[in-house]
Amino acid sequence: MANNPGAAASVGGEAIGCAITAIDTPALLLDLDTMGRNIERMAAFARGRGLALRPHAKTHKSPVIAQLQIASGAVGVCCQKVGEAEILAAAGVRDILIANEVYGAAKLARIAGLARFIAIAVAVDNADAAAALGQAARASGVTVGALIDIDVGQGRCGVAPGEAAVALGRAVAGIEGLALKGLQAYHGGIQHVVGYAARAEAARAASAKVAATVAAFKAAGLPTATVSGGGTGTYAFEGASGALTELQAGSYIFMDRQYREVGGADGPIYDDFEPAISVLATVMSVPAADRVVTDAGLKTLSTDVGPAELLDCPGWSYTPGGDEHGILRRNGANEPLPLGTKVRLRPSHCDTTVNLFDVYHVVRDGKLIALWPVAARGRIR
Amino acid sequence: MANNPGAAASVGGEAIGCAITAIDTPALLLDLDTMGRNIERMAAFARGRGLALRPHAKTHKSPVIAQLQIASGAVGVCCQKVGEAEILAAAGVRDILIANEVYGAAKLARIAGLARFIAIAVAVDNADAAAALGQAARASGVTVGALIDIDVGQGRCGVAPGEAAVALGRAVAGIEGLALKGLQAYHGGIQHVVGYAARAEAARAASAKVAATVAAFKAAGLPTATVSGGGTGTYAFEGASGALTELQAGSYIFMDRQYREVGGADGPIYDDFEPAISVLATVMSVPAADRVVTDAGLKTLSTDVGPAELLDCPGWSYTPGGDEHGILRRNGANEPLPLGTKVRLRPSHCDTTVNLFDVYHVVRDGKLIALWPVAARGRIR
Repeated sequence: MANNPGAAASVGGEAIGCAITAIDTPALLLDLDTMGRNIERMAAFARGRGLALRPHAKTHKSPVIAQLQIASGAVGVCCQKVGEAEILAAAGVRDILIANEVYGAAKLARIAGLARFIAIAVAVDNADAAAALGQAARASGVTVGALIDIDVGQGRCGVAPGEAAVALGRAVAGIEGLALKGLQAYHGGIQHVVGYAARAEAARAASAKVAATVAAFKAAGLPTATVSGGGTGTYAFEGASGALTELQAGSYIFMDRQYREVGGADGPIYDDFEPAISVLATVMSVPAADRVVTDAGLKTLSTDVGPAELLDCPGWSYTPGGDEHGILRRNGANEPLPLGTKVRLRPSHCDTTVNLFDVYHVVRDGKLIALWPVAARGRIR
Repeated sequence: MANNPGAAASVGGEAIGCAITAIDTPALLLDLDTMGRNIERMAAFARGRGLALRPHAKTHKSPVIAQLQIASGAVGVCCQKVGEAEILAAAGVRDILIANEVYGAAKLARIAGLARFIAIAVAVDNADAAAALGQAARASGVTVGALIDIDVGQGRCGVAPGEAAVALGRAVAGIEGLALKGLQAYHGGIQHVVGYAARAEAARAASAKVAATVAAFKAAGLPTATVSGGGTGTYAFEGASGALTELQAGSYIFMDRQYREVGGADGPIYDDFEPAISVLATVMSVPAADRVVTDAGLKTLSTDVGPAELLDCPGWSYTPGGDEHGILRRNGANEPLPLGTKVRLRPSHCDTTVNLFDVYHVVRDGKLIALWPVAARGRIR
């Protein structure tokens, strides 16, 4: 037998052109037109505000999608891992920000290797880490961009805004091999604050810290050409604050259950962007009239922010039922779901669900039109 | 640039023979000797009880490990997905039970394809699904084994024990292309019941249903040569019940935080088996004296049953901090964790964490001795 006899079947043995219902399962469906509208909406917002747009590619891990974002006006992309940057660079993306701290000789040498071919920058929050990055750059005879990462309230990575940021900025500006470009100020915690007004207020507090640090950088003669931040939940607030030069939202292209539920300007659903991905699953067991089981469980739909949302099956609800099972329960006298029924689920968290798949099944007008690899899936180093 | 320039670096660019602390991160460490003891302990239990052992390969997704289990006496392995069976068969595993319901023409044809080369059986809980499987088998001129899957309390897949199981057994016995072998009776819900006595009692209730169905099968002249079930939490109880002929435990080779916490015969830790895997992570940000950040987040350590457990760092605790971050917090005046420190974490759920990795970093006596692919990772079809 061949080394990997079922690879085609596993990642998409269906014929291009087939109906969605003919796609084998589980499958990660990507609605191309919907994603295209999301890409254009965020690009239009950035254009209208005179902001650079650098979408976060950790969401999609796809060079194809990165190139669509760039074709729509993005200056480049963000990613979290060196391994993601390598995949994107290999596919022709020319400007990448690793919006995360990186430490360790092997990874720093890989960043320097990328800097021979593309513009690459890294978030730094520590003088020793910056010194090690500079050393790696010098060893390869390249220059690596650096953004001082400030903690505007998340309590994760980042140096404190204001004085501490300026001190680190001065240190990094003096490191040969690094080119200080400005600041990064991403607050993951406020992206999912429920309620439009509450989220706006949280974003204002973060933006004030960014603005103060930008002013301190200017007073110190440090560069502020790039001030990168904002996410899908706060782009409109942070993008309008005047503190940022660049937006690094990612989830807006796909949306997910969690983001839908944070609330929008006009009601309980946050609908600035449309849901563009879903997971197709098959009912493969019908043990009871009020309970059937699908082939999509924990290894297909992430649950880090709760369960996925069942679509198009009124009166039925979804519960993860183990690694490879999803349980659908009927509440009342709704339509049955016979053996073989294909159902769709909206992921609760797009990033961690996409990372479980090898391929996007790209659909348009109800038909499969392409298979796109999740090329940087699993690139955790 | 090459298509995938950093592949080696991403999946293990370290030199075999290096110390564990020299392994780049995140890395999934597999302690070979510890796993070997676990394999032998379960094999010895099965031998001592005259039971067949068919470990569940969904836990490890590795043909290498499957072959070690078989070399230690296992009759073959279980898996959940056709795609897992294909990977295992391609690596020489000759006897596989898909311990799960399968529906859909493409997958059934793939099962029939496997049956040309190996002994393969499938769990069935529905006459229509069994008829479709039989049709696929006949179309390929092969015979596929079948086990009637009974629900002994989990409320997921499976036909009711007793009469309903016998009725389905009779139907399946009459389907050309299928060879009815007996029963499957796995209860996932009781594996994690906390407390040794409570778990024993839950297992007794399940075993009673199995025994009654076995008796009914015998009375009906249906085969009972294989009665497969049991898991890491209940193997000792269900294995001693006399109702099963075959154990299908999986997690025992690795163990995880969840299984450690269900409680053993002698205390609060369930230690029939030893933890054999851990995730190595690097402290890559040290923003505060009482808070540092590692490079292992939700895309590295699953959280479906809660967070991973930090090892060897007394006074520090771990919280997932997003897709690619883990936050370590210091409680009191413990040792600091400087930039670059490598820490280990025990996964909360081994199956879903292993599925996030492409490779095992196999270690022995503190050194890296091999790289084993997680060959069936992501094989969800």
